[in-house]
Amino acid sequence: MAASTASRLSPPRFRAPSPSLHPPIRRSRFSPIRAAKLEAVLSIGTHLIPHPRKAASGGEDAFFANSDAGGVFAIADGVSGWAEKNVNPALFSRELMRNSSNFFNDEEVSCDPQILLRKAHAATSSIGSATVIIAMLEKTGTLKIASVGDCGLKVIRKGQVMFSISPQEHYFDCPYQISSEAVGQTYQDALVCSVNLMEGDIIVSGSDGLFDNIFDQEIVSIISESPGVHEAAKALAELARKHSVDVTFDSPYSMEARSRGFDVPWWKKILGAKLIGGKMDDITVIVAQVKTVVVPEDEGGDTEEQKGNEQGAAAVGASAE
Amino acid sequence: MAASTASRLSPPRFRAPSPSLHPPIRRSRFSPIRAAKLEAVLSIGTHLIPHPRKAASGGEDAFFANSDAGGVFAIADGVSGWAEKNVNPALFSRELMRNSSNFFNDEEVSCDPQILLRKAHAATSSIGSATVIIAMLEKTGTLKIASVGDCGLKVIRKGQVMFSISPQEHYFDCPYQISSEAVGQTYQDALVCSVNLMEGDIIVSGSDGLFDNIFDQEIVSIISESPGVHEAAKALAELARKHSVDVTFDSPYSMEARSRGFDVPWWKKILGAKLIGGKMDDITVIVAQVKTVVVPEDEGGDTEEQKGNEQGAAAVGASAE
Repeated sequence: MAASTASRLSPPRFRAPSPSLHPPIRRSRFSPIRAAKLEAVLSIGTHLIPHPRKAASGGEDAFFANSDAGGVFAIADGVSGWAEKNVNPALFSRELMRNSSNFFNDEEVSCDPQILLRKAHAATSSIGSATVIIAMLEKTGTLKIASVGDCGLKVIRKGQVMFSISPQEHYFDCPYQISSEAVGQTYQDALVCSVNLMEGDIIVSGSDGLFDNIFDQEIVSIISESPGVHEAAKALAELARKHSVDVTFDSPYSMEARSRGFDVPWWKKILGAKLIGGKMDDITVIVAQVKTVVVPEDEGGDTEEQKGNEQGAAAVGASAE
Repeated sequence: MAASTASRLSPPRFRAPSPSLHPPIRRSRFSPIRAAKLEAVLSIGTHLIPHPRKAASGGEDAFFANSDAGGVFAIADGVSGWAEKNVNPALFSRELMRNSSNFFNDEEVSCDPQILLRKAHAATSSIGSATVIIAMLEKTGTLKIASVGDCGLKVIRKGQVMFSISPQEHYFDCPYQISSEAVGQTYQDALVCSVNLMEGDIIVSGSDGLFDNIFDQEIVSIISESPGVHEAAKALAELARKHSVDVTFDSPYSMEARSRGFDVPWWKKILGAKLIGGKMDDITVIVAQVKTVVVPEDEGGDTEEQKGNEQGAAAVGASAE
């Protein structure tokens, strides 16, 4: 399901190259003498655990990951309220991800996730809506992000969260969402931002099912203990799942609910009860690490390292189970 | 001290223009018929309140703001530990800001805050160190940010924080810092990121003295109640100052300290005491709002609106008192 082989989550050693800092280097003494350059690529691991009551259908999250051209991934979380209208909420999120996968290499997209979102949304004919995040790594090491709603993304460098994006919502538990209906949001409402990454940086992205059930310190701790991106994605999803069904866990979700004024009914409150517990949901996790490959300046094809790491592999999924 | 006149903090109505969305428009029926375009500019308000015990010297924070060329601002927070070595911690931060002001229009900088940080740092000869943030708005509406340490920046859109940057630190209360010494960080260690802004978006930036003493909800509330950027900057600084000297206020700083395992001494703890209170510090606040001006395509100079709003005014300061 995931896009590349496991690799040690090593400490960062590389800065995104600029022409002045990284003059052209020779490839190898055994190769013809050619100029070469460093390019940033993502090694990507993914894991999806559906909501306990939706395991049979695979849940309503969907994702797409591909290490081609630096690396791209996307997550869509189908809005479950559509079930009340007899619409399967998974259809929209899955089609949106299929279309993202179809268009990401399109010339017009040109490593702009907001344009990819526009094109994927325009091509989606299913009824429904979804929160969505799309992230694309430029070869220079810049990660470009477009996000509508409350999928999350954090960057971990040297054992600390050094970048994270904020959720957008209409009100508590009603996120911005890309929709089949005119009342929904569009690519124009997306939070569009970018961050310059270094070799070794770890990106952790997920649906709200991840970030509602796990704290930053836990994410950093799991990343530091995981031998590779696959293991990290799986461990994060499993810990979030464990918390999500734990009615005694004071989750980020319950803390946020209390800070917004939500509470247990008064008759429970006078008995000492407190609004607490995890949030059961589909949980999608993508963990990506920035690596560099040496690319001859006159070659556009795969390098040896790319081939060795299955960097060209793609994943479009609705469940890792 | 601040860089432009007060203006109503109006709700966002504008999306950063792109050639396809905003075809050239005519300037006015009274002007010669010329193509024109929309450009994003910042209306900037600033306010600095020194640490209560450093009021006479103006404190160790310094800032720089200028609405030229879209808009640029920077904050440096001199690291107070230098006082133990008989070095005035304000000298380094103030010189760094003066140099940022001198270089921001330099051709080599070209709206890249990381290059501006490199040049300003290289030109600074004072002994000391400082956390620093530099933000520059491109005419297209992209805010580019370089940050070393724990100065903060948040973007507020439609009444919610939709973007914020994370602090970088070696350990609790020891932030990354640009230094006169080789052991310090450089521009290469900066968090470098960008975010696409819309007309009406509000940027709130400050030294840690602001964000250690005020919660996001308070920031959003003050922004919504303020008639303009000056008033917002002053109100935010004054609320942070009030909290900073309140030993009963459970501040973001005290909550963070407890979450890192810090606590009151055991003999206070058994008496029921809790680590609590604001953090006394220099408090620098910059509030900037994204506006648009109509610029004739064949003109590079000031527009009427720019002149009317004093958009060209600059501020380099160490204290607003």
